[in-house]
Amino acid sequence: MITFLSGGTGTPKLIRGMRRHLPDHEISVVVNTAEDVWMSGGFVSPDIDTLIYLFSGLLNTSSWWGQEGDTFITHHELQRLDGGEYIAIGDRDRAVHLLRGEYLKRGMTLTAATAQLCTSLGVRAQILPMADTPVETVVSCSGREIHFQEYWVRHRGALPIEGVRRRWAAPPVATPAVVSAIGAAEAVIIGPSNPITSILPILECRGVPEALEEVPVVAVSPFIGHAPVSGPAAALMRARGLSPDSAATRDLYAGFLDHFIQDSSDPVEVSGAIRMDTLMNHPGVDEALAERILSLVRGG
Amino acid sequence: MITFLSGGTGTPKLIRGMRRHLPDHEISVVVNTAEDVWMSGGFVSPDIDTLIYLFSGLLNTSSWWGQEGDTFITHHELQRLDGGEYIAIGDRDRAVHLLRGEYLKRGMTLTAATAQLCTSLGVRAQILPMADTPVETVVSCSGREIHFQEYWVRHRGALPIEGVRRRWAAPPVATPAVVSAIGAAEAVIIGPSNPITSILPILECRGVPEALEEVPVVAVSPFIGHAPVSGPAAALMRARGLSPDSAATRDLYAGFLDHFIQDSSDPVEVSGAIRMDTLMNHPGVDEALAERILSLVRGG
Repeated sequence: MITFLSGGTGTPKLIRGMRRHLPDHEISVVVNTAEDVWMSGGFVSPDIDTLIYLFSGLLNTSSWWGQEGDTFITHHELQRLDGGEYIAIGDRDRAVHLLRGEYLKRGMTLTAATAQLCTSLGVRAQILPMADTPVETVVSCSGREIHFQEYWVRHRGALPIEGVRRRWAAPPVATPAVVSAIGAAEAVIIGPSNPITSILPILECRGVPEALEEVPVVAVSPFIGHAPVSGPAAALMRARGLSPDSAATRDLYAGFLDHFIQDSSDPVEVSGAIRMDTLMNHPGVDEALAERILSLVRGG
Repeated sequence: MITFLSGGTGTPKLIRGMRRHLPDHEISVVVNTAEDVWMSGGFVSPDIDTLIYLFSGLLNTSSWWGQEGDTFITHHELQRLDGGEYIAIGDRDRAVHLLRGEYLKRGMTLTAATAQLCTSLGVRAQILPMADTPVETVVSCSGREIHFQEYWVRHRGALPIEGVRRRWAAPPVATPAVVSAIGAAEAVIIGPSNPITSILPILECRGVPEALEEVPVVAVSPFIGHAPVSGPAAALMRARGLSPDSAATRDLYAGFLDHFIQDSSDPVEVSGAIRMDTLMNHPGVDEALAERILSLVRGG
C-alpha cells in the first residue's frame, strides 16, 4: 500500500498518475481538513471532495474541484436571493455536502461520514480525514482573521496576508485509521501540495510525525524557483517567514524525509534532492512521475 | 386589509382568486407552521413556501407546492446516495430552504426570515408565520408518533392514524405581527384548509382566538359531504373523534365565527350557513368565490 498526504490539487494530480500503476484499493490518502467549512447547511470538505470525485471518476479535472458537468441552479438562486454563498457549489456536489452535514449532525465522525460517502460513490481507495475534530486555517488580512476559504475563494487570494495559523477548540489528533495507513505503508508520498495550508495541518496532528519517522517518506516540491506550480503557496510561505521555494519546503519535512524530489528545471539547489519532471500540466507527466517515484521507493 | 388564516392548498387557491380583487399589499396571511421541518440542512416551511411562491408568481399551481419548472438535480443525487430526503425539494426551492435555515441559525425569527425572503422575491403581501417558536403536528400510527410530513409525504397518507397532536417545547404564542394583522383586518377569512392540521395550529396560538372575537370572521368549509376537497382532512378529523364534515368544522370555529360558507352541493345541513360554489378546481371559481366573500364582508 502507498499512502499519500494530500491537499486539493497538486497531490491529487500525482495520485491520478499513480492509479495507472496501482489498483485503487492499494492507495490510501490522508487528507487535509483545515479548509473545511459549513456552507449553506452543508459541510464542505474541499480536499476530501476532490479525492472522492477523483476516485469515483466524477472530478472536474479542469478546475480540480467539483464534479464534471455539474449544474449550479441552487447556487445561482442563492446568489440572486442573498449573495452569501461565496463558494460555487454545484447541484450534485451540494448533495454530497448536505449528506456529509447530516451525517455529522447525527453524530458520525468525519472519518465515518467520508467512508459512507466513498461507499455510496463506489470509491475503493481509502480516503482518510487527517483528524475528526475541527481545525481551520485562518489568515490575517489587515489585522482581521478570516477563514482560508474566504481568502482564497471569496477574495481570490487578492488580499495581502500578514499571518497564517490554525484555529481549533482542541489540538487535532491523527485518527487511528490515519496512524495505521501511515504505519502499514510501503512508502508515504507527500505530493506537490501547498506546504502551509495542505501538508502542515496534517503534520500538526498528534501522532503523524512520529508515524512518518518509521516509514520511507518521499516528498515532491510544489515550487519551481520562487513560484508555486499553482495556488497561493508563495504568499503563505512568506506569511510564515519562509522563502517560497524547494529548500524551505525540504526543511519543513526534514525530520522524517527520505527522498526529496524537485523539478528538473528548478533553479534552487537542494542538496541530495532527486530531479524529475514534476510539472503535471501535460498528459502523461503524472503517470511518468508516479512511475519514477514508485521505482524509487521499490528500489527499482 | 383582508387577513387570511391559511394552510397550504385550499386557502391559497382562494387567495389566488382574491388577488383579482385586491392589491397584494392589502392582503395579509397568517400561516400554519406546524408542518415545518429541517430537511437536508434547510428549513422547509411548506405552507409559507406555497404563499411566497403564489405571491411571487413562482408557484407550481399543478401541485400547489414548489416552483413551476423547478429541477430536482440535488434531490435525485441525495436519493441515489442515501435515499433519506423524502420530500422532493427542487433546486430553486432548495435555495429558499437553505437561506431560511441560515437566517434561523443566525438568530433571526421565522417572521423576520420570512419577511427577508419575501423582500428578495418581490412579495408585497404580508406573509406571517403564526408563531416564532417551533410547533409540530405529529400523528400516531401503530403506536408510534411521526411528523405529519412523514405521514403525508413519505407514506402518502396510507397509514391508519390513531391520533393527532401538537408537539412543542413551549406553548406557541401568536407573534405581535399576527395579532396586529387580525386586529387591523376588515375581515378575517379562514379558507377551505384542513381544520386539524392547518387551521387549529393557528387557533391554538395564544392570542389568536381572542383577537378573532373582535373582527368579522368568515370560514369556508373544506368538506363536501364527508369527503374533503383535497388532502387528508377526513382521516385527521376522525383521529380527533370528529365527523369529517362541514357541521363539525363549523363547531370548531363557533367561538368567533360570523359567517360560515359551505358548498352549494354539500348534503350536510349546517344551520345559518351560506351556500356558494367552493370547489376551486375550475378556472374562475376562485375569483367568483373571493368576490362573493368580499361582498359579504363589505355588506354588498
